[in-house]
Amino acid sequence: MSAEQERLARVRLSHALEPGDAKVADAVATLGAIRTLDELLADTESRPQLVDRVHEADPDRLLSMAERQGIRFVTPADAEWPTQLDDLAHGQRVQGLGGVPVGLWVRGPMTLGELSASVAVVGSRSATSYGFDVATDVAATLARAGAPVISGAAFGIDQAGHRGALAAGGGTVAVLACGADRVYPAAHRELIEHIAQRFAVVSEAPLGSSPTKVRFLSRNRLIAALSRGTVLVEAAIRSGALNTAHWADQLSRVLMGVPGPVTSPTSQGVHEQIRRGGASLVTSGLEVLELVGASGEHLMAVPRGPERAHDGFSLQEIRVLDAVPVSRGAGSESIGRIAGVGVQETERVLLALAGAGLVLEGADGWRLVAGAGRTGGT
Amino acid sequence: MSAEQERLARVRLSHALEPGDAKVADAVATLGAIRTLDELLADTESRPQLVDRVHEADPDRLLSMAERQGIRFVTPADAEWPTQLDDLAHGQRVQGLGGVPVGLWVRGPMTLGELSASVAVVGSRSATSYGFDVATDVAATLARAGAPVISGAAFGIDQAGHRGALAAGGGTVAVLACGADRVYPAAHRELIEHIAQRFAVVSEAPLGSSPTKVRFLSRNRLIAALSRGTVLVEAAIRSGALNTAHWADQLSRVLMGVPGPVTSPTSQGVHEQIRRGGASLVTSGLEVLELVGASGEHLMAVPRGPERAHDGFSLQEIRVLDAVPVSRGAGSESIGRIAGVGVQETERVLLALAGAGLVLEGADGWRLVAGAGRTGGT
Repeated sequence: MSAEQERLARVRLSHALEPGDAKVADAVATLGAIRTLDELLADTESRPQLVDRVHEADPDRLLSMAERQGIRFVTPADAEWPTQLDDLAHGQRVQGLGGVPVGLWVRGPMTLGELSASVAVVGSRSATSYGFDVATDVAATLARAGAPVISGAAFGIDQAGHRGALAAGGGTVAVLACGADRVYPAAHRELIEHIAQRFAVVSEAPLGSSPTKVRFLSRNRLIAALSRGTVLVEAAIRSGALNTAHWADQLSRVLMGVPGPVTSPTSQGVHEQIRRGGASLVTSGLEVLELVGASGEHLMAVPRGPERAHDGFSLQEIRVLDAVPVSRGAGSESIGRIAGVGVQETERVLLALAGAGLVLEGADGWRLVAGAGRTGGT
Repeated sequence: MSAEQERLARVRLSHALEPGDAKVADAVATLGAIRTLDELLADTESRPQLVDRVHEADPDRLLSMAERQGIRFVTPADAEWPTQLDDLAHGQRVQGLGGVPVGLWVRGPMTLGELSASVAVVGSRSATSYGFDVATDVAATLARAGAPVISGAAFGIDQAGHRGALAAGGGTVAVLACGADRVYPAAHRELIEHIAQRFAVVSEAPLGSSPTKVRFLSRNRLIAALSRGTVLVEAAIRSGALNTAHWADQLSRVLMGVPGPVTSPTSQGVHEQIRRGGASLVTSGLEVLELVGASGEHLMAVPRGPERAHDGFSLQEIRVLDAVPVSRGAGSESIGRIAGVGVQETERVLLALAGAGLVLEGADGWRLVAGAGRTGGT
């Protein structure tokens, strides 16, 4: 029963702790939850409120309460534990917070093990329509390639990231600063419920808790730690998204930034990250995949749909193919411009794609062959 | 009279050669112009057209023809020779072109020695209004700081660079692909004449010659070589401005790129340069100055107007001061946003600037004190 006791101890700690309590997290990492709990309870002087919360916590009741709401408690002992979170054990602190969470409350059918190839898409809550559109596109490309998109369900870029992934038929996970049984912001109830039904909503915070500044900051470290890389799409100079970026950097994750007009305040924080060498400039989801995927590894780490005829194409071929319209024809120049490929090269690739039966040239230019669909690999 | 003979030999070579003829340039660097000329004339087989052109060249007549048009011929023997051009002697080639020019035809009162602190602003001919505005702003900041702006007088970004520098009351130099006695493009006659009257128009091409592809490419190497750094503002994937960028890179000049929307084809070439690590991302003229100026050296290398009360301010103070409007008041938050400085810090700086009598706070917010003017140092 020791494993079960360790688990119940973690439930009690999870209920009692503020997310990101690095001191206790470190103790748990060294001593285990049972001994950490014992030591906490033995010392009634230093942190009386924490001790009260531990006493108040009834792990069996908490677990059954969670279960009734379709929420499970995931710890390092579980098969689905996302082992990339263990990188948080190395002592990094951002604004005093850090550490491996004692457990995560998860609502939804997706197992956290499926997040090994995930990418975080984060940014400004007051995004411009430019940022919103780019975040949607980037997330869609990631999701199509089998990389789940992680974000925080906030207004602006977070929302665009989730919606882009969903629209592309891919996976997305929301990490919340409130309890996994709550939604925040309330305006995103429908989005969060949809993610919980299809994929997963995750929180380190106790059930029923409301979001606080500390919980937002601690949540940001999970977004960075769960993903292979973080894409920053619009962030003003003091944007909260820069906190996630800082965590990505601390954890040696790939940090990427999408540039924008230098006249746009919501791109200033991103440009600053790129200028300081913290973030790599990316302009598309494909470029994100190039940076996070160790030679296409991301394409294999996650279960995918059946292979398509055009898997194994070069990036340039994929770019061109993705730039060919479905409904109306387009000239090779226009396609090349969208693909970012020279006209002559575009024409060469188009002929090759036509040979493979994927595109055809009509009176109004090139279009996709009906049923050939978009590239499965992107 | 040997120095004079060397000079006349260079005039003959300049008339006969295509700009960027690296082979002859290398010979001149090793043997001098007189011996190079002798050897060229002795070999009537290999380059008969070049020999014809040399025979045709009457240096005295060319020099007096130039003089009548206010054009002088500048060689390495002249005090005003921009010694940074000697970096072209190190054998770099781009598209087969290279070498130190045998001489430059210069029209205008500015001496080329004043270009030691110059910065090139180049980019797409089909610039967007965004690119045009940013290039204008960047050039204005550079010019105000005493860094002459070098460009090619083309449509789009080149034009914006020249105009921004002129509007700020600073110096600017146009390097042309046609003869210094001609203008190209014709639509920019007024601009080019204005630059020639106030500053300098420079060309390596023979008097009277029209621009050709080779002359454009060779001209680009001069723009890169004359300046401390090249700022790329909008360039599509195959933009000619990337040729200048390539030269800047080859010559170990600072190469900088201004980002833009990833959805804008005219920013793709810039983003690609930043992604590949060739160019540093910059978002303002101040950031350009930080990169090209060895600790404010650019502020001393060029003769400047009288010192102002606010010289010696920190970059942050200059940023805030430059963000304070002249005509109407603005809140500290708005000023901070434009300056890229946090609100609290902005307020602290504004109070200090108010103490120095440079800004004042009225009912409608902060504004510049009349007559305090903009920062001389930026």
